[in-house]
Amino acid sequence: MALALSLGARGLGRTWPNPAVGCVIVQRNRIVGRGWTQPGGRPHAEVMALRQAGEAARGATAYVSLEPCAHHGKTPPCAEALIAAGVSRVVTALEDPDPRVAGRGHAMLRAAGIEVTEGVMGAEAAEANAGFLKRVTQGLPLVTLKLATTIDGRIATASGESRWITGPEARRAVHGLRMSHDAVMVGAGTALADDPDLTVRDMGAGHQPVRILIDSRLRHSPESRLGRTADQHPVWICHGPGAPTAAREAWARTGALLLDCPETDGRIDLRAALALLAGRGLTRILCEGGAQLAASLVAGRLCDALLLFQAGKLIGAEGHPALGPLGLPLLAAAPRFRMVAAEAVGEDLMQRWLPE
Amino acid sequence: MALALSLGARGLGRTWPNPAVGCVIVQRNRIVGRGWTQPGGRPHAEVMALRQAGEAARGATAYVSLEPCAHHGKTPPCAEALIAAGVSRVVTALEDPDPRVAGRGHAMLRAAGIEVTEGVMGAEAAEANAGFLKRVTQGLPLVTLKLATTIDGRIATASGESRWITGPEARRAVHGLRMSHDAVMVGAGTALADDPDLTVRDMGAGHQPVRILIDSRLRHSPESRLGRTADQHPVWICHGPGAPTAAREAWARTGALLLDCPETDGRIDLRAALALLAGRGLTRILCEGGAQLAASLVAGRLCDALLLFQAGKLIGAEGHPALGPLGLPLLAAAPRFRMVAAEAVGEDLMQRWLPE
Repeated sequence: MALALSLGARGLGRTWPNPAVGCVIVQRNRIVGRGWTQPGGRPHAEVMALRQAGEAARGATAYVSLEPCAHHGKTPPCAEALIAAGVSRVVTALEDPDPRVAGRGHAMLRAAGIEVTEGVMGAEAAEANAGFLKRVTQGLPLVTLKLATTIDGRIATASGESRWITGPEARRAVHGLRMSHDAVMVGAGTALADDPDLTVRDMGAGHQPVRILIDSRLRHSPESRLGRTADQHPVWICHGPGAPTAAREAWARTGALLLDCPETDGRIDLRAALALLAGRGLTRILCEGGAQLAASLVAGRLCDALLLFQAGKLIGAEGHPALGPLGLPLLAAAPRFRMVAAEAVGEDLMQRWLPE
Repeated sequence: MALALSLGARGLGRTWPNPAVGCVIVQRNRIVGRGWTQPGGRPHAEVMALRQAGEAARGATAYVSLEPCAHHGKTPPCAEALIAAGVSRVVTALEDPDPRVAGRGHAMLRAAGIEVTEGVMGAEAAEANAGFLKRVTQGLPLVTLKLATTIDGRIATASGESRWITGPEARRAVHGLRMSHDAVMVGAGTALADDPDLTVRDMGAGHQPVRILIDSRLRHSPESRLGRTADQHPVWICHGPGAPTAAREAWARTGALLLDCPETDGRIDLRAALALLAGRGLTRILCEGGAQLAASLVAGRLCDALLLFQAGKLIGAEGHPALGPLGLPLLAAAPRFRMVAAEAVGEDLMQRWLPE
């Protein structure tokens, strides 16, 4: 199952709206098939592994990191494929909460006389599939907030200079992170200040995450890097009802997808925007700032993990802070996180914190 | 030698102006004497170890974490004591840079026919004695800057609430740090905001570090906790030439020691103040803030180590920053640090950074 999970992880960022599943088929202690959900979400992991196993699947055990699907979607159900291949036992990590599956995959297998063991490495599978599970159960994508700061929590000097706070190894790690997410998201302030293209570079990546811009008034220019590359890799823009028509039209001409989002207190309602994004299939979003968007995610309890790359530098109080105002009435109201990892990445310290 | 270093460390914070030395005497593979510099700096480690060894020192090997002294100070030279005890070999980690010693201890031993080996674990000894070495060679104390911040680098909410950012384990670790330093230092802003007493609590401590207040205009009240306890444990105040006479007199009556320091640009010249403190014997100072003093130490390149206790909370941009303005012209001018340790302390993350 550990191998199935690890195979599944290969698909992270590319299988949305489907989960990134892994499957291993074992015949008399020999692995005869391995598979993982393919880019775009199809074929599913089980089909890939069965194809590799061929006749050797007969009487074998299939380890799958998620319950095999039971419904006819764009592909026939995997439970049927496993039955047809003649496997004698199926071990799964997790029930699929998708209402079209939700136990029916397991039931189909059992009805066909296959021995089914559920819940093996369930916690690990739940973590690996957290984005898919959150989308299916809450209608929201998993959001990881990445911050790259100095020791004193600054992301730029007073004059706005921010290249580079962290070292090349940390920047490379960020490109790896982008690859394992369905989408990368920034706010208008960061887009205007840095004109980023948000693509994955130098990772041998055939795949690019969706690039999301949160820009209520569509202030960012369609002539920007995002605008000029929107016809090559997807750019989705969440704007408010008051975005000027001319800007909407200009952005639409670039090939970007415009998402009309509701506003609260003059800002895009992020919960609603994220729900729209989940509705379009996104399961894992990496937010790369800026300070205002980060603060809104934190204040709205919409941030599922905080990744901090801390560089051994000090900028001082005139520098730009990593996080905008949170408007806390009391220290006791401060959002709390528990540390789950801290490790050196080049000369920087990477920390992973989860909300409590 | 590792044991000698570890014994020496027991004296850290209590032996100033002397170094915290350890000594182990070994006779035929058996430890017959252990000693370390006693509180107040006397007796020295060698004398303590020789006393314990008694006659067993004859023909033994003495391991000492610093070159034995060769001069008649308040005690007779340790080199003489080792010769008189009849040890046949002395192993040291480091030459004592004190001009009254500086190789003469080693020379005295050799002249008496004792075999001397120098430089064993020299790097470790130099680190352990860094405060003493810096005072003797540069006329400045070693300064460790302690910061306790949220993930986003804040030390208090907008309203100034700061108790407690970090957890009980981190606060306890800070009390341990205070004990291993000769002095604890804060700026006037922190003293006015928090009215701290800066004592070591709950550590079974018989010893209290000197409490230093940097307060150019003597704004902090003699009725404060520092003022009310100045007759019990030392309080030293660095003030500027413009401090009001009435305040000087009121503080003098509390028992505090007043140090008249020069100013630069209307602030106390910290390098000069630290030189005065080193002149009075201090070798290791723990600075506990606030933001302005921390920034001045960093900007003046007077900070020898940065200890960050990072709590899993976010306060946001309205919070008070850990570090005041540094006035950097460019990101390339940002003071750089390299990480030497990162470990969990309770729920917080402790990081140790050294200036590059």
